[in-house]
Amino acid sequence: MPFITGDVPSCSPERPIFSVILGNTLLSTIPGLSGAGPDPEKTLLTPNLDAELVTTGRITSLPLKPNTPTGCPTPATIARAMTELTGIPPLFINAGLKNRMTVPFIDALGEPGNDPRKGDAVPQAKTLYAHGREIGRFLSRTSDLLVLGECVPGGTTSALCVLRALGYPASVSSSFVKNPVNNKEALCQEALARLAKKPVGDPLEIVCRVGDPMIPVAAGIAESYAGTLVLAGGTQMLAVCAVLKAMGRPLPTVATTIYVKEDRSANVEELASRIGVGICYVDPSFGTLGHPGLARYCEGEVKEGTGAGGAMCLAYMMGYTPQQIQEKILATVEAYS
Amino acid sequence: MPFITGDVPSCSPERPIFSVILGNTLLSTIPGLSGAGPDPEKTLLTPNLDAELVTTGRITSLPLKPNTPTGCPTPATIARAMTELTGIPPLFINAGLKNRMTVPFIDALGEPGNDPRKGDAVPQAKTLYAHGREIGRFLSRTSDLLVLGECVPGGTTSALCVLRALGYPASVSSSFVKNPVNNKEALCQEALARLAKKPVGDPLEIVCRVGDPMIPVAAGIAESYAGTLVLAGGTQMLAVCAVLKAMGRPLPTVATTIYVKEDRSANVEELASRIGVGICYVDPSFGTLGHPGLARYCEGEVKEGTGAGGAMCLAYMMGYTPQQIQEKILATVEAYS
Repeated sequence: MPFITGDVPSCSPERPIFSVILGNTLLSTIPGLSGAGPDPEKTLLTPNLDAELVTTGRITSLPLKPNTPTGCPTPATIARAMTELTGIPPLFINAGLKNRMTVPFIDALGEPGNDPRKGDAVPQAKTLYAHGREIGRFLSRTSDLLVLGECVPGGTTSALCVLRALGYPASVSSSFVKNPVNNKEALCQEALARLAKKPVGDPLEIVCRVGDPMIPVAAGIAESYAGTLVLAGGTQMLAVCAVLKAMGRPLPTVATTIYVKEDRSANVEELASRIGVGICYVDPSFGTLGHPGLARYCEGEVKEGTGAGGAMCLAYMMGYTPQQIQEKILATVEAYS
Repeated sequence: MPFITGDVPSCSPERPIFSVILGNTLLSTIPGLSGAGPDPEKTLLTPNLDAELVTTGRITSLPLKPNTPTGCPTPATIARAMTELTGIPPLFINAGLKNRMTVPFIDALGEPGNDPRKGDAVPQAKTLYAHGREIGRFLSRTSDLLVLGECVPGGTTSALCVLRALGYPASVSSSFVKNPVNNKEALCQEALARLAKKPVGDPLEIVCRVGDPMIPVAAGIAESYAGTLVLAGGTQMLAVCAVLKAMGRPLPTVATTIYVKEDRSANVEELASRIGVGICYVDPSFGTLGHPGLARYCEGEVKEGTGAGGAMCLAYMMGYTPQQIQEKILATVEAYS
């Protein structure tokens, strides 16, 4: 299999940046909805721990290893491996976290997203979009390629709500092997029913009602960023693209892993095609590396996150070979075992 | 008079960044010590309002104009004029603020500094230094020149304590026309007496005992930044240089205004010479522009702040003429009158 397939970004970056937008939505605390953490309440802390790991190479604020309960290396370990390989320090952007960060970050001044069944999910969506634009302006001055990932536990469900509200027949992916489709579907129906009582057309108003804080920050950055933008993620980043399209803005490229494409409970390829956004898929052949935890990615666990697919894509664009990328990931995750 | 005198940075920047480290020290709330705000308690909010003004061009979170009580344009208006002229969006770094920011910023995860007479001023100084290093690593990837200012009301007094503790015969500048030298001196003596009870040699330990949160963040950035670094400020930035020198680190260049050099209550030139750091002085001829508020800079009011001297120096290094710089400042401050 080729290392990357699909619409591979064609630029040769001289000054690339790798950044990850972090956010919470209270959706992740609903039991059974998010696999991004050891238990529902602790999913809120996952972005903070990911940032700590990718920045420093260690989780020091809690006695934890960066593995899922089943021993699968988190996508943050892959992002960390790629920042070590490329020498590009990561830049984290806080779109709305419940817990205090332990490493430096850009603050977009948001709050955790609310349950869209109960009230507006992101009341400050327009402000977050404006703050995203400010951040994009700064990053434009300093880079020619921005690979922008996300870490929002529960974020596939808010992405589902936004995509459906914008009229797309979306099915979204999951970090669980068995996608809790029925739970997500029921929640989405309830959120959309609330939205239907007072319908809105403005895409940012839809994000305000049923989205999460990552979406408007990413959309704002996409609006103002002057270089090549690669959104690193699966269905969540497609929700950002759908918002941009509804706003009449140019679309970036999306980069994700083959494991998201192969998720039969989701329809990533179809969605990308309907939105009209180019998407590429990295296949790091985790099944052949001899690491049982990485091999679980091929069975559908984790799949993607913390910009891992985009981070591998970036290393490839910078000229690292698939073998160098795989060896670095293997060495990194083995050090955490 | 020439526009810049002294050790003018010689690089021709292709990708410059203008950044300002913001911080609080509770020293600014002591009546009579800081002129950076309409009253002692409100000095704590000055960095937040400066960041809002420089980023957005307006102060919207409070019904305030960016002028001192005597009608003197704040240095933030000068920094704003220069970001408009050069098209370089500002990057604010929060080293430890009491109040919530209203525009995006990089969070170095600090707290306001304490009164050094009563306890350790910056208990987390070493962590802030490490966070500064992370920020400097990121900025190194994305720029070849970093002009780094500060806004810390009360910060000349913490700078005085650090410089004296490091053995320099320092007299520090002030944003008041009449420098409250006696107040600062008495406070410094008391802080140093406390330090003497349990003396320390490690420069960061001295910052921990008697400094403010800006100093370790700036020192950390200076340690890791790979491009040309210009510290934009007067005696406060000399305190950062003194810490760097005591740590055996290479020294950056300092850029400030002629009004700081001309402050007879301070000894900036002598201090820079003793530390062995190059310093340059921008003379924007505010007395000749026909604006009574700007003319007050020549009488010793405000003098510098929010990286204003460095921002003018940066515009000059980028090829703007003194006349273009002066006209832009005049147009900007007149719009706020």
